[in-house]
Amino acid sequence: MRTDQIREGRLAGERSHDIERFLASMDADRWIARADLLVDMAHLLGLQRQGIIEDAPARALMAALLDFYDHGLPEAAFDERFEDVHAGKEACLIERVGEDVGGRLHIGRSRNDEVATCIRIRLKEEILGLLSSLTDLRRTLLDIAAAHTESVMPGFTHLQHAQPTTLAHHLLGYEQGFSRDTSRLREAYARLDVSPLGSAAFASTGYPLDREYTAGLLGFSRPAPNSMDAVASRDFVIEVLADAATCMTTVSRLCEELVLWSTSFAGFVRLDDAYCSSSSIMPQKKNPDVAEIMRAKAGTVAGSLAAAITITKALPMSYNRDLQEVTPHLWRGIEATRESVPLLSGMIATAVFDTERMAAEAGRGFSTATDLADALVRDYGLPFRTAHRIIGRAVRHGSLDLDTLETAAREAAGISVLEMGLTQEKIDTVLDPRHAVAARKIIGGPAPETAAAQIEVQRGTLAGETAWVNERETALSRAFEALVIEARRFAE
Amino acid sequence: MRTDQIREGRLAGERSHDIERFLASMDADRWIARADLLVDMAHLLGLQRQGIIEDAPARALMAALLDFYDHGLPEAAFDERFEDVHAGKEACLIERVGEDVGGRLHIGRSRNDEVATCIRIRLKEEILGLLSSLTDLRRTLLDIAAAHTESVMPGFTHLQHAQPTTLAHHLLGYEQGFSRDTSRLREAYARLDVSPLGSAAFASTGYPLDREYTAGLLGFSRPAPNSMDAVASRDFVIEVLADAATCMTTVSRLCEELVLWSTSFAGFVRLDDAYCSSSSIMPQKKNPDVAEIMRAKAGTVAGSLAAAITITKALPMSYNRDLQEVTPHLWRGIEATRESVPLLSGMIATAVFDTERMAAEAGRGFSTATDLADALVRDYGLPFRTAHRIIGRAVRHGSLDLDTLETAAREAAGISVLEMGLTQEKIDTVLDPRHAVAARKIIGGPAPETAAAQIEVQRGTLAGETAWVNERETALSRAFEALVIEARRFAE
Amino acid sequence: MRTDQIREGRLAGERSHDIERFLASMDADRWIARADLLVDMAHLLGLQRQGIIEDAPARALMAALLDFYDHGLPEAAFDERFEDVHAGKEACLIERVGEDVGGRLHIGRSRNDEVATCIRIRLKEEILGLLSSLTDLRRTLLDIAAAHTESVMPGFTHLQHAQPTTLAHHLLGYEQGFSRDTSRLREAYARLDVSPLGSAAFASTGYPLDREYTAGLLGFSRPAPNSMDAVASRDFVIEVLADAATCMTTVSRLCEELVLWSTSFAGFVRLDDAYCSSSSIMPQKKNPDVAEIMRAKAGTVAGSLAAAITITKALPMSYNRDLQEVTPHLWRGIEATRESVPLLSGMIATAVFDTERMAAEAGRGFSTATDLADALVRDYGLPFRTAHRIIGRAVRHGSLDLDTLETAAREAAGISVLEMGLTQEKIDTVLDPRHAVAARKIIGGPAPETAAAQIEVQRGTLAGETAWVNERETALSRAFEALVIEARRFAE
Amino acid sequence: MRTDQIREGRLAGERSHDIERFLASMDADRWIARADLLVDMAHLLGLQRQGIIEDAPARALMAALLDFYDHGLPEAAFDERFEDVHAGKEACLIERVGEDVGGRLHIGRSRNDEVATCIRIRLKEEILGLLSSLTDLRRTLLDIAAAHTESVMPGFTHLQHAQPTTLAHHLLGYEQGFSRDTSRLREAYARLDVSPLGSAAFASTGYPLDREYTAGLLGFSRPAPNSMDAVASRDFVIEVLADAATCMTTVSRLCEELVLWSTSFAGFVRLDDAYCSSSSIMPQKKNPDVAEIMRAKAGTVAGSLAAAITITKALPMSYNRDLQEVTPHLWRGIEATRESVPLLSGMIATAVFDTERMAAEAGRGFSTATDLADALVRDYGLPFRTAHRIIGRAVRHGSLDLDTLETAAREAAGISVLEMGLTQEKIDTVLDPRHAVAARKIIGGPAPETAAAQIEVQRGTLAGETAWVNERETALSRAFEALVIEARRFAE
Repeated sequence: MRTDQIREGRLAGERSHDIERFLASMDADRWIARADLLVDMAHLLGLQRQGIIEDAPARALMAALLDFYDHGLPEAAFDERFEDVHAGKEACLIERVGEDVGGRLHIGRSRNDEVATCIRIRLKEEILGLLSSLTDLRRTLLDIAAAHTESVMPGFTHLQHAQPTTLAHHLLGYEQGFSRDTSRLREAYARLDVSPLGSAAFASTGYPLDREYTAGLLGFSRPAPNSMDAVASRDFVIEVLADAATCMTTVSRLCEELVLWSTSFAGFVRLDDAYCSSSSIMPQKKNPDVAEIMRAKAGTVAGSLAAAITITKALPMSYNRDLQEVTPHLWRGIEATRESVPLLSGMIATAVFDTERMAAEAGRGFSTATDLADALVRDYGLPFRTAHRIIGRAVRHGSLDLDTLETAAREAAGISVLEMGLTQEKIDTVLDPRHAVAARKIIGGPAPETAAAQIEVQRGTLAGETAWVNERETALSRAFEALVIEARRFAE
Repeated sequence: MRTDQIREGRLAGERSHDIERFLASMDADRWIARADLLVDMAHLLGLQRQGIIEDAPARALMAALLDFYDHGLPEAAFDERFEDVHAGKEACLIERVGEDVGGRLHIGRSRNDEVATCIRIRLKEEILGLLSSLTDLRRTLLDIAAAHTESVMPGFTHLQHAQPTTLAHHLLGYEQGFSRDTSRLREAYARLDVSPLGSAAFASTGYPLDREYTAGLLGFSRPAPNSMDAVASRDFVIEVLADAATCMTTVSRLCEELVLWSTSFAGFVRLDDAYCSSSSIMPQKKNPDVAEIMRAKAGTVAGSLAAAITITKALPMSYNRDLQEVTPHLWRGIEATRESVPLLSGMIATAVFDTERMAAEAGRGFSTATDLADALVRDYGLPFRTAHRIIGRAVRHGSLDLDTLETAAREAAGISVLEMGLTQEKIDTVLDPRHAVAARKIIGGPAPETAAAQIEVQRGTLAGETAWVNERETALSRAFEALVIEARRFAE
Repeated sequence: MRTDQIREGRLAGERSHDIERFLASMDADRWIARADLLVDMAHLLGLQRQGIIEDAPARALMAALLDFYDHGLPEAAFDERFEDVHAGKEACLIERVGEDVGGRLHIGRSRNDEVATCIRIRLKEEILGLLSSLTDLRRTLLDIAAAHTESVMPGFTHLQHAQPTTLAHHLLGYEQGFSRDTSRLREAYARLDVSPLGSAAFASTGYPLDREYTAGLLGFSRPAPNSMDAVASRDFVIEVLADAATCMTTVSRLCEELVLWSTSFAGFVRLDDAYCSSSSIMPQKKNPDVAEIMRAKAGTVAGSLAAAITITKALPMSYNRDLQEVTPHLWRGIEATRESVPLLSGMIATAVFDTERMAAEAGRGFSTATDLADALVRDYGLPFRTAHRIIGRAVRHGSLDLDTLETAAREAAGISVLEMGLTQEKIDTVLDPRHAVAARKIIGGPAPETAAAQIEVQRGTLAGETAWVNERETALSRAFEALVIEARRFAE
Repeated sequence: MRTDQIREGRLAGERSHDIERFLASMDADRWIARADLLVDMAHLLGLQRQGIIEDAPARALMAALLDFYDHGLPEAAFDERFEDVHAGKEACLIERVGEDVGGRLHIGRSRNDEVATCIRIRLKEEILGLLSSLTDLRRTLLDIAAAHTESVMPGFTHLQHAQPTTLAHHLLGYEQGFSRDTSRLREAYARLDVSPLGSAAFASTGYPLDREYTAGLLGFSRPAPNSMDAVASRDFVIEVLADAATCMTTVSRLCEELVLWSTSFAGFVRLDDAYCSSSSIMPQKKNPDVAEIMRAKAGTVAGSLAAAITITKALPMSYNRDLQEVTPHLWRGIEATRESVPLLSGMIATAVFDTERMAAEAGRGFSTATDLADALVRDYGLPFRTAHRIIGRAVRHGSLDLDTLETAAREAAGISVLEMGLTQEKIDTVLDPRHAVAARKIIGGPAPETAAAQIEVQRGTLAGETAWVNERETALSRAFEALVIEARRFAE
């Protein structure tokens, strides 16, 4: 009968199932079960290399670990009796190979450094996966933008028609945001890429462990420089959750626009049926459910972040069990983000933009009034604020035709635009949305050639970042492969 | 082969598994699966009563529903292909009894009112369960307090020894907090105890449903008064999560104290081994893990609350799919609270308080200095601020003996306490912690007889609240029993 | 020269201005300065009544307090050197009347109970003010609803046109939400309406204070029952902030709709210019800025709530200085809500609803398709799910005319609606939005007479609640007046 | 009479003071008033350089701007009538130099890009200031650590005595955390160091502005690449607030320890009186108030972060007035952090650590039991888990002397440690805390020479980072000086 090996020396008595459940972290531990076996193999190779464990038990242990690795950890290891998968796995090991062998794996180690190492390994994989999705999303945005540098549409401020822009320019704005998310996650990755293994409970150990060796085996850049910090800090969790929450906030803004654009009112976009649901009662309904859920997921990730901060705040050194409660929030926040980003790519890639509808709305709501004010400034020397007031007054009167402008100019500035030489023809030219867009050719503007140039720049940046992610993914999987090969070599 | 009945009219094409998973709420729906069947039965009885459905299909439907109720909803109903359990269950129904029968249950109903009704039913049960745990916890606190009205201990401000109090007085403070949690949850219960059923998508329905009849069958006090509000509002979720977060914040403060009190430093309490864990590496460790996890759960519930608010904020009317993402946060927050409160009762009930250690610390840190200042005011007419300054200066000098006080009085106020008649004997009496506690007999104070009286008052309040909870629990289970009996009677 | 009387006994040395600023709470203390003087008067009357202070110094003290009350606390009391207004005020008092008199006010009192009492006094006033605004807002909503029971408009789910409703029904939904906010705040008021005064540092005091007397003078229902809880608990702050955040979340939803409804797309409403801003660059712009800021304030209040929970979590008993940092979040959250609610009333009351535009949109997007499905069920006996599928298919084909329906019925169900007797005339009747609305006359529905009846019910509820608020406001101001009169009588 | 120039064209009527107050951002705008004048100068130089404005009005404008810069913006610019300082300043300008001149500054510009540029300028300064404080704090920690590599103290897990460590090792753990905060803020700085100026409302402008020129004048690395993103994104605000919240979470942990360590129980540290307060009632109290407020500030910053995310979530493109409500949270969060970090340095630098008390506690609570288990493994070949169980059992029996160990070994493992050769002398050596610390010499461990080496490494890193910050600070102030010189040159 398996028992919790860790309790039975110091503590007496049984625990109720309610207490066991309350203490156990098994759901979250499934995320790290595979990483835990890799950590075991690396630790064991390290113990053996430093002569801390004898060959025979080390080989027997390694054989058992490889068996778990190849066939999956026994389900019994996840029994809630064991508090966590580390205790569960050790009990399974001891059942398999006896305490005289199985009881030797935990030399010079604590669950504190073990779990911290596992979380970082899995998190590195998750971040790379997320980075990969983000670069895909940006590629999608750039591709659609490239096809729509001439697709004029209304830009909005305060959800009011404001000035004309293009779909390309609009999407390039989002690409900037996701580009910053990419760089944030890259930096977080580099920062957390240190191995806690060897930190033991928090004070390291008297055994002469080679922390650089095991860090290398596990694909880390180096060992964490302070053993207390290595087990007790969770700022890396807060950082990654903050990065995820920031990314999802931008995602939620794009989703909000997809919801708005697919209303009957706007009609700018038709989302693919696959991303929509109908109603159980209203047969006509086609609802943008994926975009709505994704928008809501931003709140979910924000909640995970808030929880992680609240839990960690004011905890004294070093390890406190509270930290166990942080981890599920990490996985939950990561999962919501990891699921959302690829679906967002797919949803946009399959969306059909109604460019005619967009173009028809581009000039609505006096959206080129600024260009008319600019013309009054540029061509007739009016101060901008005066021109602004005249146009504003004309809009209040309901029109930007020559007569109304003349009335407005007299009312608002005591001058005559007719006398200045303004003509209806000139007005018509200036108010044309395509003219307005074409004129905005400075850096960052929506003019087609400006946007096209920007797309090229971003493609270059993206290529570099994609390569970075691919390299890391390759390096990491190679490290794990090499570790398992080394483990097999040793076990034979 | 089961298909999603709701999609197939309006929408074309298949959805990827990723999209299905993203949209599905099956984990959270397990919470409401039983409630959903009760809602179905009530709706069906209502349809039949109003003559909206004919007898034969109604009986066939009811038989199938009862079968699900008795044997559990088929696991297929939780397949993620179905978005939610409502769609899954309808597909199972139709598979069981054919569309000509199974397709009639959803008359005059939408998933929007269906799910809102289910959530409220389950939430009412959860709140009653939580209230029951809270009253248990308060009973435990009152019982321990009753045994410790004379157990002197140091009270702390800023975690510094401040003034003596008793364990009874300390625990009675917490009982007050949990008493307010109780009343908040009672009021939340009453507020959300209205039935959305009949609100359909949000605009109610043209069918002449009898909403009062179905509300009664389902144990609600009455129908929700506005059908749009009934499906679109989730302030009741925010309210209950806020109540839970508030309760858990108080729980976390008590857990913090249990952690502090069980340090080697304080040694005020020994927690039962069942509520403690050991270390995988340090064999001597006995750690207060349950208290730590519980303290952390306060952060988890705070995160659920933050998520619910963030998701709901700025959603336009009426139903948006975002609301689906709110519900798991509700269950998660409730679950963390529901698990914590009974374990806290158990942890405190089994804890062994070291009253000798507490008493030994009660007078430490000049904790009765205020009483000495009060004596100077009361017996020698000094202004309180002057007395305060003299005592403060004496403490700075390291002692409250007569000589030091005399020095301090001359320095800080230019007076002589010797000349005023202060004696060492008087000082010794005043500085005795038991004397200080006994003197604090005004309302709310720690004097044993004051605390004992307060315990009696609280016991009376608690008895009333316990009765209230029991009555609601009984009424609710009776309503559900009566509904099922009525359903069986009809199906026969 | 004024000095910090509290520090100088026990502590040595000067503090830098940075430290003083960091510790000081003067900005937040301005909220409670007036309340603090009321507390002083009540405490002093209590001391005198119990014979704890002699008449002469008591009269001198009272005269000085009344002078501060009549002419405002000296600005010097808010100097950041003093940590808080309580210390600052005491220093001013002592400067005014000498330490021998001024040093006697703090007998049997601590800043811990003093500040807790002040916060509750001011918060009670704030809650009543907020309740008054909420009842005004509800009155506005009911008035507008009463004028628009026949104003048909589209209802939305997922921001898609869903089913027709009326403006009355829509606004009645919001009135429900604000009605729950009202009841939550009423209950919070009753719960926090207890006086901490007499709790001193946390352990009460050995002086025979009459806590019921001072509670009565200050308009409280009774003394707080446990002195530790009275100074250390801040769950009442979390509760009120949660109530405010919940209210503002509903406010943000209405603001979101006002923003949407005032777009060029929808054109349902024209907000009064007073509630709008223009653009510094785009002369044509009229932006719904008040609605946007108000929507954002929901996030501000949510942030205050999160801060209050995070700060309070896991604080041990009893008072910790952390609690000082909670209070500014309370006032900030309250202020954002107190400012928003009346402006929302004004914004809605002055808004011009374009009922023609609403009516024109009411039938768009096949919004009455459900009624057609219901007709197929009711009149031809189809199962609802079958009817739903047929209509959904017809919408996919782009029309609900008889021909398309016939095609859809054959495709989706293998039946003929023509053979069943469906006619175009019947279709036309059923699809009329006014017909659909009129049919929804069950409880909670949008039919004009149902809404009108609901308005009457709500007006009754509102009248009762308005009376409750007015009574409390009157009682509170009478208590304060009586206290000041008693103080003057004594001082003379 | 000054009026709001921006409103008067398009909008009619007066606004109430309540609405003006609600819309105004003047408190937050004081943070950016100086930056706004720099932005004006740069924009004006740019307009002039591109020939968009004629020389005469440009010179007159510049003279007025320089006057404002030299003597401070007139207080009238902050009148709440003006919504924001940008409108207020323009009104002051026009009052000063007339509309014909003053009305020309806003050519090709919107408040949207103006405010975004101002926020980034001020935020860059704030981040550099915060980085400077963080490097100071780390220097302080390293200095204290260097003096305490031999100061043995107990390390804690779960707040229980766990294993001996040193004060140096403990503080080095915190230095790691603050080192990561430093790198996060550096990266955030680099990411947000792009100039929005020229983005106008969101669509840039038809004027041929030279955005690289003005970016350079304002000390930015380059123009923001997309004009919509430049005005509408606030992820940089969320990022910096998240960095601040993360930093403050670590700060709160150190403050928690200072509070714990300065209790009468622990007595590890005496904080300088300057960082402590006393009690208004308890004359003996010396409370660690600065540490408590600082701990609480972590909650304040977390609240600011939550607010910023909640406000920004789901906002459509491009600018919405909601964004104005984000900025005060940024400044509030930054301010709390900027005030805390230097005070933390000062508090630790002036604290007196009682190393004797620490040493006396280092071996308490069987804190070296792990070393004894390790000895059983290393010297007698026991499996670790067996040794762990034996020691745990002995602790349960209350002692680690030879007799108790023998009993425990027989009970828990059926073996004899006596027969294995264990002696009391050996036990005594192994249990000595200094021995335990000295043995932990692997990377990251507390052995004195290991810690000393780590201190040297960190000093090197710190020197590089300090240089980076200094360079940026110098470069930024030089850029602003050069801009003002150029402005003066032009204005003459």
